[in-house]
Amino acid sequence: MDAVKVFCPATIANISCGFDVLGLALDAVGDEMILKKSAQPGIRITKITGQELPLEADKNVAGVAAMALLDALDHRGGFEIEILKKIKPGSGIGSSAASAAGAVFGINILLDEPFSQQELVPFAMEGEKLASGVAHADNVAPALLGGFTLVRSYQPLDIIKLNTPEELHATILHPQIEVKTADSRKILKTAISLKDGIRQWGNVGGLVAGLYTEDYDLIGRSLEDHIVEPIRSILIPGYEALKQASHKAGALGVGISGSGPSVFALSKGMEQAKQVADAFDKAYADVGVPFEIHVSKINLQGIKILERW
Amino acid sequence: MDAVKVFCPATIANISCGFDVLGLALDAVGDEMILKKSAQPGIRITKITGQELPLEADKNVAGVAAMALLDALDHRGGFEIEILKKIKPGSGIGSSAASAAGAVFGINILLDEPFSQQELVPFAMEGEKLASGVAHADNVAPALLGGFTLVRSYQPLDIIKLNTPEELHATILHPQIEVKTADSRKILKTAISLKDGIRQWGNVGGLVAGLYTEDYDLIGRSLEDHIVEPIRSILIPGYEALKQASHKAGALGVGISGSGPSVFALSKGMEQAKQVADAFDKAYADVGVPFEIHVSKINLQGIKILERW
Repeated sequence: MDAVKVFCPATIANISCGFDVLGLALDAVGDEMILKKSAQPGIRITKITGQELPLEADKNVAGVAAMALLDALDHRGGFEIEILKKIKPGSGIGSSAASAAGAVFGINILLDEPFSQQELVPFAMEGEKLASGVAHADNVAPALLGGFTLVRSYQPLDIIKLNTPEELHATILHPQIEVKTADSRKILKTAISLKDGIRQWGNVGGLVAGLYTEDYDLIGRSLEDHIVEPIRSILIPGYEALKQASHKAGALGVGISGSGPSVFALSKGMEQAKQVADAFDKAYADVGVPFEIHVSKINLQGIKILERW
Repeated sequence: MDAVKVFCPATIANISCGFDVLGLALDAVGDEMILKKSAQPGIRITKITGQELPLEADKNVAGVAAMALLDALDHRGGFEIEILKKIKPGSGIGSSAASAAGAVFGINILLDEPFSQQELVPFAMEGEKLASGVAHADNVAPALLGGFTLVRSYQPLDIIKLNTPEELHATILHPQIEVKTADSRKILKTAISLKDGIRQWGNVGGLVAGLYTEDYDLIGRSLEDHIVEPIRSILIPGYEALKQASHKAGALGVGISGSGPSVFALSKGMEQAKQVADAFDKAYADVGVPFEIHVSKINLQGIKILERW
């Protein structure tokens, strides 16, 4: 095999109570990438369509992640990367993670899979580090593994793929404003009350239990965040209106995707998720900010191979 | 039926990362109680053996919990309670919870079960309020429901019975010193760092996932507490020695039971739990504080009926 074309899913990180630890992969939103073996050693990004992004490998998240993988193997061969970017950078649904994860996934395939999907996570994290200054795993883990993932610990890195009930669907509204991850992180408090902490880990416990028992009602009750949402939602125009609209439309829960500005809701079933999309659409019409809405089932598989040759 | 004799299990609350939310019930340690219908209205505690505790119903946790139940039903009948106390008050393994839970469980049986076990929790919590000033649920919930329980939320009260792998066993060392719940609560910080919070809810997610997937290794990795243990362990002589000894002996994890002074370890299998007991025994010999050790499987059922007549 000399080349592979992959679908790299968008992802939702910081799922409500699961700030910094819980993420999930989407099915209907994502980039495409083509990875090819090349006679020229090293990583070259030959083409990027859909967005203006650096072609220099050491300035591109896909390039940096790919180089981290080759370094670990001490591999002297070369690869070319083409990126068809459909996820907008800065949207809060894992644009950089998709590129970083796609690069390491594709090259790993072309090298006959020296690494498991789990083992690829640290290389993809190098791409995240370039993008946001922090080598976080809560987008690259679901992009690579699919479904809901938990980053239990960073030192040592310990990532768990959780059970994901099949009827879970996501609705995402992306307001076309810029919220930089670094800025969004800066406004967080470095200390929280013990009381809020207890509520948060109670909800994480409830959410994980709900995922395993496929108890949608429990999942919904657990989708609460008393720590980050009250602060970050200030940066998202119309957040409260979206929250109320989605609850009225029957969503299980709603929250900020990643560090925003995208807002996500989870629903049981595609029909419900579409009704939430309608409710989002109506509620946001008055806000005066252009927006896009996506509806997607949860991607249980992660990155998918579309073609190989 | 006019009378019932029940076994009321000891419980471990504040299980490592699950401070204030995660508890479990024990099988080999507990009180016995006899509840009898009486011609005289109200609650009377007729006998307490094993410990010196108040016989006045309104000063006794069992009495207060029982009265809360009767009030809710507006029930005018009467009940007599006998308590054979085997769990030492102040040991940190749910002595007051056992009495409160046993009282409401037994009376509920004698009244033909107007309430589910879940619905009994708030009445038993009234007993806890008398005992410690805080109506906490993390001991009474596992006492009533069995296994591992999660208090997801207090407002509204939302308690989830989690899956409990059958091979899980507990080893408990009870140093014979007094640590008052109220004092042990006072030394806690009211604020924590966001960073420690994230580690804590990552571990809660991992622990709950481990319980459902019966992944003992994941359970072990998740039994971490960077928030409460570093503070409360100061009050427990020899804590660090116990921790090291139990890890060496193969325990999955170790922590402070409730607000102490008891220390618990979880193990896979009875054999391992006994080896941990031996390690505890050796490690504590030098500390110079008298102690008791219990080994128990996890009680999956909660309070048990021993006899009825």
